[in-house]
Amino acid sequence: MAILCRLHTAYGDALMASLRAALPEEELRPWPETGDPDEIEICMVYRMEPGFLGPFRNLRMISSTGAGIDHFLGDPALPRDVPLVRVVDEEFASRMADYVLCWTMFHHRDVAHFLAAQRRREWAYRTMRPASEVSVGVMGLGQMGGLTARRLVAQGYRVRGWSRTPREIEGVESFHGREGFGAFLRGTEILVNLLALTPETRDILCASTFGQMPAGGVVISAGRGGHLVEEDLIAALRSGQLRGATIDAFRQEPLPPEHPFWTTPGLVVTPHASSTASLETTVNSFRENVRRLRAGEPLLHRVDLDRGY
Amino acid sequence: MAILCRLHTAYGDALMASLRAALPEEELRPWPETGDPDEIEICMVYRMEPGFLGPFRNLRMISSTGAGIDHFLGDPALPRDVPLVRVVDEEFASRMADYVLCWTMFHHRDVAHFLAAQRRREWAYRTMRPASEVSVGVMGLGQMGGLTARRLVAQGYRVRGWSRTPREIEGVESFHGREGFGAFLRGTEILVNLLALTPETRDILCASTFGQMPAGGVVISAGRGGHLVEEDLIAALRSGQLRGATIDAFRQEPLPPEHPFWTTPGLVVTPHASSTASLETTVNSFRENVRRLRAGEPLLHRVDLDRGY
Repeated sequence: MAILCRLHTAYGDALMASLRAALPEEELRPWPETGDPDEIEICMVYRMEPGFLGPFRNLRMISSTGAGIDHFLGDPALPRDVPLVRVVDEEFASRMADYVLCWTMFHHRDVAHFLAAQRRREWAYRTMRPASEVSVGVMGLGQMGGLTARRLVAQGYRVRGWSRTPREIEGVESFHGREGFGAFLRGTEILVNLLALTPETRDILCASTFGQMPAGGVVISAGRGGHLVEEDLIAALRSGQLRGATIDAFRQEPLPPEHPFWTTPGLVVTPHASSTASLETTVNSFRENVRRLRAGEPLLHRVDLDRGY
Repeated sequence: MAILCRLHTAYGDALMASLRAALPEEELRPWPETGDPDEIEICMVYRMEPGFLGPFRNLRMISSTGAGIDHFLGDPALPRDVPLVRVVDEEFASRMADYVLCWTMFHHRDVAHFLAAQRRREWAYRTMRPASEVSVGVMGLGQMGGLTARRLVAQGYRVRGWSRTPREIEGVESFHGREGFGAFLRGTEILVNLLALTPETRDILCASTFGQMPAGGVVISAGRGGHLVEEDLIAALRSGQLRGATIDAFRQEPLPPEHPFWTTPGLVVTPHASSTASLETTVNSFRENVRRLRAGEPLLHRVDLDRGY
């Protein structure tokens, strides 16, 4: 029996080498070298298309290396009787907060202006507003959104948050539910998306949402590609309704070279690089779950499929 | 009698208009339309060359619109019997902390890599270290440096500080004096300069300083041009001793178009834009000091020339 590894392309080789070193007794097969599907007992997956897991009839554990699991839950072919576990890394939320702070400051402090002026060898002074005059609205106040909102408060920003159900965070003006969404947007200059992808949040970054923000706003999305209506973002940047955006997740990844996002003025593309679990944490938690599976012990960080997380 | 205004070129016109509106009774002369030097009673100055104030024999007040006053103190022709006042703005230090956080995150999160990849339409994933693994060393722990260090701590960075005399800031590993400088540098990946320019700190950003930092470090300087040995910075970036730098203050400003800094790989030039007092604060505090001068009342924010601040 073997372990099939369909890993994040970016650190695929390094992760594969670390997994081999950590599990010398196991037969590890790097996808797409699957071999006989009936020999696959464990599958470690970062991304996959629907139906990918269907052929593996002897699967005993599925391990997700990413944070989001909507692609598993949304797959009708997911074998629901096989335990699905995920990597939980305390640094994950912290790195996500780093991402949001970094790009909030990038847009607040007009970094693109200074970099462009440097290319023209031009001394192009611009005055800066203090963070206390800049309103940042965080959509999603779970582990990642909550930490991010607190970090923004510590940095001096005016912070508001929006969540499905009411949440209280010190220093954050909170809004919730569909009925609170308009008021939240009307006071938000920099909109940060850290929502999970659900039927309610699909396409939430659209023309109607951008149009309720004050003109000249910014969107930072580290959620999912399915949150964003791509043509609406391009139109809002072209019209000036938005002055900037940084997007980390896309409908199609890697973003194809011909996609208009690469060259849309004001838009920064990051390659799904906002946050990842560390390689070390990924390897250690996978090794531990393989050991537990072999020993018949309860698995760590098992997903409750009915609850959805 | 008249007020001569030699203002920051960037918002010169807007500031001049605001000053005229705030002081309708006064005759304001925008430099270089000086007229008869004997008619100049008050001088509002951002930058000047040595000797600039010498010809004004009837001067009763000098008002500096910047934070640093080393160019006044270092001028042998400064009329030391004329009161020197400056603009104090509580947001000044906060904006400076914004500048440092922005560029710390820019270098920590490899923003230049992602922007360059986007220009090539390339999906160039890179893993990110959490802030807790990145060591930032702040030189100067006064009002600006102290606030900046606390903001870096709140953001999760490993923060160390260096100052002339011992200073304690919660969460900051402190070093002081010449004897503590080497140990401070040896543990600093991102070096932040917020020192005042004094004979002891002139040329402090030099090959010896960069050489004591771990290879692949970053320098962020929002101090003075006189702190930086420009050719040493270029050499350290070329050799890889430093991987990046953001510099806001230069020996000659505006930085001339032929200066090698504009095109040195890894180096970001910002046009002395790290922080300024707001236009509103500048106008209000100047108006109040003009009123006090006329009424014979003590001036606000007067500089003690012997103490040096």
